[in-house]
Order: sequence, then C-alpha cells, then structure tokens
Amino acid sequence: MRGQDHLPIGVFDSGIGGLTVLGVIHKTLPGESTMYLGDTARVPYGTKSPEVVTRYALNNARFLVQRGIKLLVVACNTASAVALPALEEALEVPVVGVIRPGARKAARTTRSGVVGVIGTEGTIMSGSYERELLKVRPDATVFKRPCPLFVPLAEEGWEDHQVSKAVAGEYLGDFASEGMDTLILGCTHYPVLRGPIQSAVGDGVTLVDSATAVAEVVAEELDRLGLTCKGGGPPAHEFFVTDVPQRFQTVGERFLGAPLAGIRQVDIDPH
Amino acid sequence: MRGQDHLPIGVFDSGIGGLTVLGVIHKTLPGESTMYLGDTARVPYGTKSPEVVTRYALNNARFLVQRGIKLLVVACNTASAVALPALEEALEVPVVGVIRPGARKAARTTRSGVVGVIGTEGTIMSGSYERELLKVRPDATVFKRPCPLFVPLAEEGWEDHQVSKAVAGEYLGDFASEGMDTLILGCTHYPVLRGPIQSAVGDGVTLVDSATAVAEVVAEELDRLGLTCKGGGPPAHEFFVTDVPQRFQTVGERFLGAPLAGIRQVDIDPH
Repeated sequence: MRGQDHLPIGVFDSGIGGLTVLGVIHKTLPGESTMYLGDTARVPYGTKSPEVVTRYALNNARFLVQRGIKLLVVACNTASAVALPALEEALEVPVVGVIRPGARKAARTTRSGVVGVIGTEGTIMSGSYERELLKVRPDATVFKRPCPLFVPLAEEGWEDHQVSKAVAGEYLGDFASEGMDTLILGCTHYPVLRGPIQSAVGDGVTLVDSATAVAEVVAEELDRLGLTCKGGGPPAHEFFVTDVPQRFQTVGERFLGAPLAGIRQVDIDPH
Repeated sequence: MRGQDHLPIGVFDSGIGGLTVLGVIHKTLPGESTMYLGDTARVPYGTKSPEVVTRYALNNARFLVQRGIKLLVVACNTASAVALPALEEALEVPVVGVIRPGARKAARTTRSGVVGVIGTEGTIMSGSYERELLKVRPDATVFKRPCPLFVPLAEEGWEDHQVSKAVAGEYLGDFASEGMDTLILGCTHYPVLRGPIQSAVGDGVTLVDSATAVAEVVAEELDRLGLTCKGGGPPAHEFFVTDVPQRFQTVGERFLGAPLAGIRQVDIDPH
C-alpha cells in the first residue's frame, strides 16, 4: 500500500498568477507531483473583501483535499493574507501560505531595515506582510502601496512596454527616496513586471518575491513531516480551472515558463 | 391595489460600471423607481467564458425578479453580449440589453459606414455589436479591439492621467487611419475615459456609449407595455451588491455622478 508521500502537493490560486509559484516548486522539488487549481471563474480576489475571499479559499482547498493532497500551498497572496487562519483550522493537511516565507526572506535581505511592500488592495489593506516582518524584525520600517494596474499589465504581456514603466514610476517613484533597500513583490503576477519595477525603484533595491522562499518552506515541511516523495515513477502534474481553460492556457504558459497540458474545467460552486 | 407600473426597473451589472447606465436612466425617467444589483463578489465578467457569464447573469436576474421588478436592464456589456437569449427565455419580465441600442445608435451616427467597437475580451469575442450593426447597416465595416486595461484605469480614477493617454494611444492609435467616424464604447467603464479615448482617435470620430440609447429604449418599452409609473409618491432607488459595499460606494459615486446610500450586501450563490 502506498503511503501519503506519493500524494501530490496541492496548490491553489485565484487564477493564473500562482503558476509563477508552481514553476519554482517544480524546479526545487522535481520529484514531487502537484495538483493546481486556478479559480478563474471568480478571479480576481485582490479587490474583494476578506469574507468573500475566505469563502472562496475554503471552496478551493476542499476541492483539492477531497481529491487527495499531502500539503496545501496557498499561492495567492490575497488569500494567504486574509484566509490562512480559517484554512488551517478547517483542513487536516499542513498549509503553507506565501506571506510568511516572503516576509522572512525580506527580513533576511534588508540592511537598512526599510522595506517596501506592494500587492493587491486586499493584501495591502490586511497588513499581513507588515505583521510578519515586524515579528522577526521589530525595528523595521514598512512602506506599502496597492498597485492594481500591475495585474492587467502582466496579463497583457506588456513586460517591456513604456506604459508599464510609466505606471511603475507613478506607483513607486517616491519609494526610492525613503532609504528602502528591499521591496516585496506581494502578488504572484508582479515578478512578470520585474523589469519596470526595478527601473522605478532603482538598482539599489533588492526585489523579493515569495516563490523561492515558499518552495524552500515546502521542502522543509515535507522533510519534517516525513512526506517527501520516496520515488516510484515520474511525477504527475494536474491542472484544474473553474472557467474554460483556453485563456488560462495561453497566458499561463508565460507565467509557468513551461507548456501547459491537460487542463480540466471543474465546478466547485457550493450547490 | 397597486398595478405593476409601481414596481422598480431592475438593473444588474458585474459590478460598478453599470452605474453609468443607471445614472442616465435616473435622468431620463425621473419618476421611475430602480433596483440595482452589482455582482461585486464575482466581478469582472469580461475575461470569463460565455458559459460562466450566462450562469452568473441568470443568478443576478432571478434575484431581482424574485424581489419584484417590471423590466430588467442588463447594464453589463459582456452579459448582454453572451447571455441575452438565455435571460429572455428564462424570465417573464421584458429584458433590455445594452448591445442592440448601442449598435443602432452607432448605425444612425456613422456617415462613412466605418465603425469601431471596443470592449472587454468577452464582448469583442462574441461579435455581438458587429452582428447587431450589420442587421441595420449591412454595408458597414467594423473594426474591433478588446481594451482590458481601460477598466482598471477607470477604477483608479486616472481619467486625465498621461498613462491613460498612452494606453489609449497603444490600443487605438491605428484606428484613426481607417476612415472610421464612429466608435462604440462597448463597456460601461469606458465613458469615464472619454477624454483619453477621444484624443487617441481624434476629434473627427464620434464616441457612442449605450447608456442614453438604453434609457430611451427602456422609456419606449415601458410606454408600449403600459408600465410607465403613474405617480403616487417619490421614486425609490435600492442598491444591492454581492461583496461588502465599501469599495462599491467609494468608486461608485464617481460612476453614478450622485451620492450612493443604503447599499445592502446579499448572497446570491446558488446553494
């Protein structure tokens, strides 16, 4: 009989953005199977209230847990920011969000102690990056700002476009003068716009995205719990979405950095 | 006993945008009560599939019909573009979408017969403006383009911002050279960006938004069906949203052009 270690790592996101996190998990843990759910019928979460995001996050998590996963990664920053306690309470599998690993990585990176955080309205309003940062670096000064145009700019594929540079300048132009040396990219879409964001804040600022930190925490957790896959065949990667797969596939391959195949549409509305 | 004419006009939209349509209805029909539903928990519809948008549209419509309305206005362009037949079949109240009135107004406006249409991905992919235009103006040439960044730019309040001008130039710069004299603003958010859009296409192009045309069709329909309100007190305006009202109120007042009060949150998920 197979042990739990053969089960996939579950990953959910409000839509496409979480594929940037999944891509790093695939690279860091090449022997692990994964099961990804993108809630494309209800995307985005970033402008929605904590109550609604928590309801959707529980829906998503239960879908993955029912299909069988050994650990859940909440790849969506907004859901991690507002729904993690509810998920940890409701689920029997270990849950890893993106906020704490990202905040700790930023705390290790900063020398000046002045850190910027950018994300969706929901993530920024929650104050969760700030709280996690101050836990490990109580003397830190945190500047934060929602950047709602970055998500549609990333989905348009305007990574090198003058418009993205102008928008980044508008959102972040005054950040650079605050003595900040570290900026947390607190939304899974933002690494796609790394170029314009770096230009806006200047080369002296290190950009921190949570994906690498999350993958490391997942590896540690699996090891600690004796759940690391002990082999027995090539890993399998499954993809589920709540709306038709077409757009997810087209935009998603750019985010994952690899071809996407066998995406299945599912209905997870609570009936 | 009161007749049906005392019932409100129902209006639904995926979120906030439909308030630009509601504002014109209030001005055109000052004696009529209205009941507005913004599906802010599932907004936006523009990047979602026809199947999902139709499911949400039916949810929204049934909520309003159950509370009692005499006519339904589908203020959302995407829902009008893909879900109107399903709504007409499922409901017992008359249904007015925004596509046909807008297309007919454009057909009356154009002299060159070259018409542009901009909207969400869902609206543009549906081809519905084109179909309605060609019904009344079979010789028309239609250029169309999705403009996904216009919605977040309008919600940011960047009406006069250089970024909005640059984005409008990118999307529409080559439209002006096509002999086009009329451009349909096929999304309820776009009238907010009238300035940058007009600059991008030049003063020779007339911008057509559906709101005025829709209000006229509603007035005609009520008259034809004997449903025009015959007085008996000041009109009442009710507002429902599916997520918490805060953001709807802040952004919405700019869209409606009037203060918003008494917004109520409702759960319309099919349980």
